Amino acid sequence: MPNNKTNKFAEVYSVLSNITEESLQQLSTSEQPLATRQPLNMYIKASTVDKRWQAIDCEQAKPHLLDQSTIDSMSSYQKNIENFIGTVKLPVGIAGPLRVNGLFAQEDYFVPLATTEAALVASYNRGALLISEAGGCSAMLLNEGVCRTPGFAFETLIQAGQFVAWATTQIDTFTDITESTSNHLTLKDLKINLEGNHVYLIFDYLTGDASGQNMVTIATNAVLEYITEHSPTKAKYSFLDANLSGDKKATMQSLNGVRGKKVTAEVHISAELVKKRLHTTPERMADFWRMSSVGGVLSGSVGVQGHYANGLAALYIACGQDAACVAESAVGVTRMELNDDGSLYASVTLPNLMVGTVGGGTGLPSQQANLQLLGLAGNGNARALAEVCAGLCLAGELSMIGAFCAGHFAKAHRKLAR
Amino acid sequence: MPNNKTNKFAEVYSVLSNITEESLQQLSTSEQPLATRQPLNMYIKASTVDKRWQAIDCEQAKPHLLDQSTIDSMSSYQKNIENFIGTVKLPVGIAGPLRVNGLFAQEDYFVPLATTEAALVASYNRGALLISEAGGCSAMLLNEGVCRTPGFAFETLIQAGQFVAWATTQIDTFTDITESTSNHLTLKDLKINLEGNHVYLIFDYLTGDASGQNMVTIATNAVLEYITEHSPTKAKYSFLDANLSGDKKATMQSLNGVRGKKVTAEVHISAELVKKRLHTTPERMADFWRMSSVGGVLSGSVGVQGHYANGLAALYIACGQDAACVAESAVGVTRMELNDDGSLYASVTLPNLMVGTVGGGTGLPSQQANLQLLGLAGNGNARALAEVCAGLCLAGELSMIGAFCAGHFAKAHRKLAR
Amino acid sequence: MPNNKTNKFAEVYSVLSNITEESLQQLSTSEQPLATRQPLNMYIKASTVDKRWQAIDCEQAKPHLLDQSTIDSMSSYQKNIENFIGTVKLPVGIAGPLRVNGLFAQEDYFVPLATTEAALVASYNRGALLISEAGGCSAMLLNEGVCRTPGFAFETLIQAGQFVAWATTQIDTFTDITESTSNHLTLKDLKINLEGNHVYLIFDYLTGDASGQNMVTIATNAVLEYITEHSPTKAKYSFLDANLSGDKKATMQSLNGVRGKKVTAEVHISAELVKKRLHTTPERMADFWRMSSVGGVLSGSVGVQGHYANGLAALYIACGQDAACVAESAVGVTRMELNDDGSLYASVTLPNLMVGTVGGGTGLPSQQANLQLLGLAGNGNARALAEVCAGLCLAGELSMIGAFCAGHFAKAHRKLAR
Amino acid sequence: MPNNKTNKFAEVYSVLSNITEESLQQLSTSEQPLATRQPLNMYIKASTVDKRWQAIDCEQAKPHLLDQSTIDSMSSYQKNIENFIGTVKLPVGIAGPLRVNGLFAQEDYFVPLATTEAALVASYNRGALLISEAGGCSAMLLNEGVCRTPGFAFETLIQAGQFVAWATTQIDTFTDITESTSNHLTLKDLKINLEGNHVYLIFDYLTGDASGQNMVTIATNAVLEYITEHSPTKAKYSFLDANLSGDKKATMQSLNGVRGKKVTAEVHISAELVKKRLHTTPERMADFWRMSSVGGVLSGSVGVQGHYANGLAALYIACGQDAACVAESAVGVTRMELNDDGSLYASVTLPNLMVGTVGGGTGLPSQQANLQLLGLAGNGNARALAEVCAGLCLAGELSMIGAFCAGHFAKAHRKLAR
Repeated sequence: MPNNKTNKFAEVYSVLSNITEESLQQLSTSEQPLATRQPLNMYIKASTVDKRWQAIDCEQAKPHLLDQSTIDSMSSYQKNIENFIGTVKLPVGIAGPLRVNGLFAQEDYFVPLATTEAALVASYNRGALLISEAGGCSAMLLNEGVCRTPGFAFETLIQAGQFVAWATTQIDTFTDITESTSNHLTLKDLKINLEGNHVYLIFDYLTGDASGQNMVTIATNAVLEYITEHSPTKAKYSFLDANLSGDKKATMQSLNGVRGKKVTAEVHISAELVKKRLHTTPERMADFWRMSSVGGVLSGSVGVQGHYANGLAALYIACGQDAACVAESAVGVTRMELNDDGSLYASVTLPNLMVGTVGGGTGLPSQQANLQLLGLAGNGNARALAEVCAGLCLAGELSMIGAFCAGHFAKAHRKLAR
Repeated sequence: MPNNKTNKFAEVYSVLSNITEESLQQLSTSEQPLATRQPLNMYIKASTVDKRWQAIDCEQAKPHLLDQSTIDSMSSYQKNIENFIGTVKLPVGIAGPLRVNGLFAQEDYFVPLATTEAALVASYNRGALLISEAGGCSAMLLNEGVCRTPGFAFETLIQAGQFVAWATTQIDTFTDITESTSNHLTLKDLKINLEGNHVYLIFDYLTGDASGQNMVTIATNAVLEYITEHSPTKAKYSFLDANLSGDKKATMQSLNGVRGKKVTAEVHISAELVKKRLHTTPERMADFWRMSSVGGVLSGSVGVQGHYANGLAALYIACGQDAACVAESAVGVTRMELNDDGSLYASVTLPNLMVGTVGGGTGLPSQQANLQLLGLAGNGNARALAEVCAGLCLAGELSMIGAFCAGHFAKAHRKLAR
Repeated sequence: MPNNKTNKFAEVYSVLSNITEESLQQLSTSEQPLATRQPLNMYIKASTVDKRWQAIDCEQAKPHLLDQSTIDSMSSYQKNIENFIGTVKLPVGIAGPLRVNGLFAQEDYFVPLATTEAALVASYNRGALLISEAGGCSAMLLNEGVCRTPGFAFETLIQAGQFVAWATTQIDTFTDITESTSNHLTLKDLKINLEGNHVYLIFDYLTGDASGQNMVTIATNAVLEYITEHSPTKAKYSFLDANLSGDKKATMQSLNGVRGKKVTAEVHISAELVKKRLHTTPERMADFWRMSSVGGVLSGSVGVQGHYANGLAALYIACGQDAACVAESAVGVTRMELNDDGSLYASVTLPNLMVGTVGGGTGLPSQQANLQLLGLAGNGNARALAEVCAGLCLAGELSMIGAFCAGHFAKAHRKLAR
Repeated sequence: MPNNKTNKFAEVYSVLSNITEESLQQLSTSEQPLATRQPLNMYIKASTVDKRWQAIDCEQAKPHLLDQSTIDSMSSYQKNIENFIGTVKLPVGIAGPLRVNGLFAQEDYFVPLATTEAALVASYNRGALLISEAGGCSAMLLNEGVCRTPGFAFETLIQAGQFVAWATTQIDTFTDITESTSNHLTLKDLKINLEGNHVYLIFDYLTGDASGQNMVTIATNAVLEYITEHSPTKAKYSFLDANLSGDKKATMQSLNGVRGKKVTAEVHISAELVKKRLHTTPERMADFWRMSSVGGVLSGSVGVQGHYANGLAALYIACGQDAACVAESAVGVTRMELNDDGSLYASVTLPNLMVGTVGGGTGLPSQQANLQLLGLAGNGNARALAEVCAGLCLAGELSMIGAFCAGHFAKAHRKLAR
């Protein structure tokens, strides 16, 4: 044991020990004028794009972002970006065929995955083939709904109560108003939460084949305008969303309910197949599940799972989904057990898949191409896409956990990533 | 109140009411042979890419994914993808200039953002200009570290204790082994956690300018092999990672510690500037913060913030970062307060930025171009990139919260997204 | 920086460094016969109590536990304890009068608090008087419900779906069965959750003026027996509760919903009164709220509050409530704000108050006396008791936060606790 | 499906539908004078106690709280209560003998449990006897520490950085100051956390055989006074604790670290013994563990366990511990597995046991008697007491899970609780 008192506090120094008075002065604000102020412009014209490149002043980067293919097709990005300067290209690999036996998805799918991380496609591909060889995974859409959660602040609890009493009489009107904003939107439920003199109204919607964040924003804004005008009890202030919706973040609320689409998928795999393809045993994979579930619990994760984010990010990017939703979608529960007959049981449950087959980036050329490749472009396909997402995550969990159990995980990364 | 008992359980029906015995049979596994089995291939050759397209059999998609630019440059993706079939293109817009006064980042940055979601770049751009007009944000890297957490199962607590007693004598050896696997890696800390007869070793590393997941995997695998061979107390089984690392998921552990890089950024903005650019007041933004923080707490999120995921996903994709890490990076704490002089205080703290300026996808052509555009390509720049990420998130919080306070949020989305 | 590699890992040693091979051997099981095997006995007779004391063999302890008052009244404990050996005495202090203006509680209450911790009653008393001087707190019961959550495991997702489809047709029967087990019980809601091939049925009940854990256990057991017998799809195994109920633990599910009774309470206090009684300002208390809320978020607590557990534990013990429920009840949200007129706004919201005025320990002599003292003994009073709990917690938050703001916290503990 | 739009929102009505304008007016504050104002008095004299009873005006309650034994011994409560009016009596039952093979606890213990809930002692007794019959449980103290977490607010991040830079130079002084406040206190560690312009100093202490909350409060107050006076960078405001300590609440931070004492305990039980005493099988108990762990995860609990709170609350009350600490102590991880030889493995890990054998309520007559009965009264016994707590919780988990598996849970409650 060190006998110097200070030594035992070594950790204190590690973090911030290099900070000096001088370096801290770098953090001061500066009044120096900004070299360039680039006004926002949502129209994509060659001349404005050129002006931006002049402002940026980085010629070496230009040909890689504003290549000829991009120049030829740039008008197609008109409604999806502002301050356009070019495109970034991500390589796409396919995993599969992945056989999904779902309520809505019932095919052998080639799944396009866009990633820059070596070994990712290989791992998902291995899992997909394993599932297919086992006869496919079962998949079931369990629930749907996207909410917006306006918040209202009152002076007193009495006023908050009066407001709630009024709001509960307006539900038919709320339904009419919200549903008039889009043909694709249904008001599914309204819940109310009080915290002191604050009231949260939780408007929960169905949004057809769109993931629907914009749709529910516009619908809720319409109903908020009505409330602001007609409520006999006036709020001190109110906001369109008071952060109870789970938008763009992992939450316990979505884990134990639904946001977007909730899907579960499962597969039974014989011990022989586990041995042949994963070089391990169902027993060991069940061992891993027990230990890693406790590991997840100790880390304070939302749900317990391995790496849903890898597959979801790659699929979302490839297929024009909102990639920021990986933050909320990559939660859920993976479970692996040893069946009585010695085979492996594996399931995933994802309560927060934010996917759509229309709207957002789904109509852009290469994104639409990936949805076509899946056979899931356009209306009528969002639920099937959600079931495919679950099947894909199941494939990824099987492959990664198999690699951990066989001791091959590092080897795969060393081989593919170098 | 409905007088029929069943009516009050309406919710039960909403979820699963359409499930029929017939539809459930669709979930059965199928022994039907798979049409195509696509063997994994990590080499990108024209002939293998062609074979894949024949297997996929979706001609309409091909020109959008395998366009001429992609064909010309496809060898550059060799080390980043398997089963390559083409590229997906995401439009890139620029936000800024964003002035960052950091320990490591000290420039006016044009930040490239790749997204398919309308209004995103516009919103971040607005926030970035506001920060810059206010003299820039202060930013401070607070901590660094990436861990791998192997798990060891023993028969008894006694054995677990014996193993721990041995492990604590081996730290110099562990340091030598892990640091020999890479010139860029330092073993920063080792912690030990026991849960019954399970032992977790938490190896925490510094990884230079790479985000480092592969590096720590390979280092920990090396030390695991040493442990397996030399520990006098043999584990029943062990795994390279037992899910205590927080890899690819939002965790409370990382929120209250660090994973990757921990950065905080802040800005003070005068009431005049808030009024001029956001059309609201510091008071109202402080009101929003209080209500939305409680909203976040009630939803069970990891930290309380607005939409870090939007900016991070767009920056990560543009700059060749691992987009799946959005799942873990998009956590932290946003805070807004009214200063005594009537101005606005705003800060963000992100403990889990997984960014690098070398390795991964950072060397791919268009990704490297975006890093060059930021002035942060290559060695020596990872810490600055992390500070820019924090500044960007601060910009996004200011703009979104400003829009909620001014009642403009839905309008902006309606205008830009339709 | 220390130049010895090992030094930086000091923390490793601190935890387990004293463990030796020899000390570990103490953990071995021992076959040595047990000196005494004390058979369970639920009847309280002098002779069996004597036998227990002979077995325990600790004469010095006996007079303090089995004093004359206890001997005289021991038959009254017959239905509340097994293996009875005496009583433990906790001192009771009163806080108040506490004025509560609630939907159900509308009195000036003297609140009995049983604790062995110095300064606790003094602190709650100070807060209660402050609230009363400000005209009392408003309090509102917001929701009620106690659930039991049996779990069912099936071979496949298909069977799980079949089971759910059947269960949704049985709701009237479930209602009849559960409600036939007690005159005081109502089946309020049934929800269903699937995770792979596991099905959770969430039976949510109202339990009158009892806190109701036993009532819902017996009701759910009855319905479980019916399900086991009549479900056409047989579960591999099922359990009366699969840990989704939140029983005896803090959960995010209860925080954002209800378990037991959900109540909110608020008070507005003038700056003068804050100054006079707490020796600080509303501004500083709002400052504390902001910082401590973020502190709570960073610590990963369930909700953000100060010390609800102190008041609830003391009230629960005094009034014959289930003290173990402090684990679940002591969660919620405290909020303090500066009003526009310079006064203080303070509120608490507790979603998980497990209280009753009949059943459990409420009928025991001294516990019943404390409920009488509150004026809340017997039927018809549980909702008012819940509102008093919220008012009490509000008093405790005001007093503690006031002490932190005035810098008096340590002084009070030093003075009273020594 | 109901065809009336409003019907599907039934839930909205259930909560707040009975609220009327009239009932809401009951929530108004009232200026009506308080009948009685009961000044705080910490001295226990017969005359002041009498005055309180006159103020309370509830004669029927008096003999049960202020009985002759209480009158005779009331001076002993002098330092543990304010506004004393009498005592509440809780029946105590014994569970055991419970054989613990720990680093510090190495006896067959009769564990005194104070509760008013029928079946509790019976259940813990059953588990304790089972453990003992299996040779006892192994138990290991893993870590210790209690923290206080003062918070400091600055104008800017720069000042926050300057403050941290100064604080890291003061560690020897901090050590001297804090350790001078008590002979029993050691400053174990200091950590620093920044969030924007807020700095948290996490002072972590060892507190000997006291649970130590008062000790660390007083020590931290002393160091806070030093900081306030000597820090060259002055805080806008600071607080003795900014809610990062986990005091009196379940937190993820304590789950994955330590607060108070962290202990793990385990037992191996043959299938025969499981069958004989619990009437079920190790397989079924492992099944229950898997399902209920996922249930706990879905509910958003802190850790996954069954009902630690029951045993801990009963032991804490019996032995003069701080019963409010049940809120923080009742977290952890229970694990049950099927061993290769067909026997059952069961363990518990509790990271947040707040126990002491001196100070607080441990010296009160009946509480001291219970500690004597355990053989753990006075100095040198706190670590052993923590190991006994873990063994007790293990007993409770085994008994309850056994009852769920055998289908006996409801029967036991029906039989004992009616």
